[in-house]
Amino acid sequence: MDKLTLIKVGGKIVEEQETLSRLLAAFAAIPGRKVLVHGGGRSATAMASRLGIESRMVGGRRITDKSMLEVVTMVYGGLVNKNIVAGLQAVGVNALGMTGADMNILLSDKRPAGEVDYGYVIEMGVVPVIAPLTHDGKGFMLNTNADTMAGETAKALAPYYDVSLVYCFEKKGVLRDEKDDESVIPEIDFSLFQEYREEGIIQGGMIPKLENAFEAIRHGVCEVIITRADCIG
Amino acid sequence: MDKLTLIKVGGKIVEEQETLSRLLAAFAAIPGRKVLVHGGGRSATAMASRLGIESRMVGGRRITDKSMLEVVTMVYGGLVNKNIVAGLQAVGVNALGMTGADMNILLSDKRPAGEVDYGYVIEMGVVPVIAPLTHDGKGFMLNTNADTMAGETAKALAPYYDVSLVYCFEKKGVLRDEKDDESVIPEIDFSLFQEYREEGIIQGGMIPKLENAFEAIRHGVCEVIITRADCIG
Repeated sequence: MDKLTLIKVGGKIVEEQETLSRLLAAFAAIPGRKVLVHGGGRSATAMASRLGIESRMVGGRRITDKSMLEVVTMVYGGLVNKNIVAGLQAVGVNALGMTGADMNILLSDKRPAGEVDYGYVIEMGVVPVIAPLTHDGKGFMLNTNADTMAGETAKALAPYYDVSLVYCFEKKGVLRDEKDDESVIPEIDFSLFQEYREEGIIQGGMIPKLENAFEAIRHGVCEVIITRADCIG
Repeated sequence: MDKLTLIKVGGKIVEEQETLSRLLAAFAAIPGRKVLVHGGGRSATAMASRLGIESRMVGGRRITDKSMLEVVTMVYGGLVNKNIVAGLQAVGVNALGMTGADMNILLSDKRPAGEVDYGYVIEMGVVPVIAPLTHDGKGFMLNTNADTMAGETAKALAPYYDVSLVYCFEKKGVLRDEKDDESVIPEIDFSLFQEYREEGIIQGGMIPKLENAFEAIRHGVCEVIITRADCIG
């Protein structure tokens, strides 16, 4: 099977023009088939605030009511996504912005949406740029955690490609000691993850990220890399 | 060549849930290959106003500064587009939302963007839903008149399909007498258009709409229909 690299980048990186430019250049340099999944939470929070809508977060996840759904649909699907797509076109990457509703690639309940027919799009050399939004099949969009979106996309592509899933965030990797940026755990399997979680070495937002990672591995994704955005490529 | 129907719908129709539902049902019923191009001006104006941004219009066209560009990118590319895409998925149409930047289908200077490779997407049975936004090839999105977007898309597809371009608006058709809704001109060619324009029978926003229509015809589009949204299908 052909190799496919799926990069997930968080909000901060894609929301500042300088870090975005560097990211897009690094992403453009990745050879072969690739997919980009992005966040955009900071922009959504900022836009909500300008509109007088309060952002409520529980356990790092956004509570999405109707007015906030409008904001994330606009910001993730429109502003952030199209900014990235236009930026990639400028560096010669034939990007196609998508949400879970586009070509029905991801329903909210995570059922794989029938045929992964966007595989043909990838075969054409087109690079999907995926916003963290799904749909419910009844006409409504839904806010979706970007890590989950990346994990589900990687799983959906795993039967067709050797998928490398790369979660980019602000640290060099998963740290043994939160306060020591150099204490990167070089490799971790599920039993070590469980051990570290019980010992409290791995905690907070890193737990769902690693759970997404191991679920992807269980579904045939070849490897998951958790690293800093400037380490890709 | 296969037949392809390209429907352009204005803002008012796609921005109200009831008229949108009717439109999507009618659009779903159109047999064969199809493309939907939408507007969204009223939503953009409303969102701009909520954000304290003034909408300036000259000759029916929006003046787009940086902050307004952010609004139209969000509203057209995100809110309106994804609402339509999710709505079409709910009625069994495998829609794919796009702007001119996605798959590089339309650069701002109207040059056909190389290969019309989204033709393959159409061949897959996917239905492009196109927001009135282009890109400049240097990383920036640009606001684009939706009638122009529809005309350019129809022209780009004309070498590959027998394209019927349908402009939907609030009237039954092009009227001989603006005040008489029943005075529809059943058929008009370029010389009759010129005559009616000189006589002042055709005026205002209808002039650029018809100019787009005749330019499409000159570039191989089979027919252009100007009618009310509830007359399609």
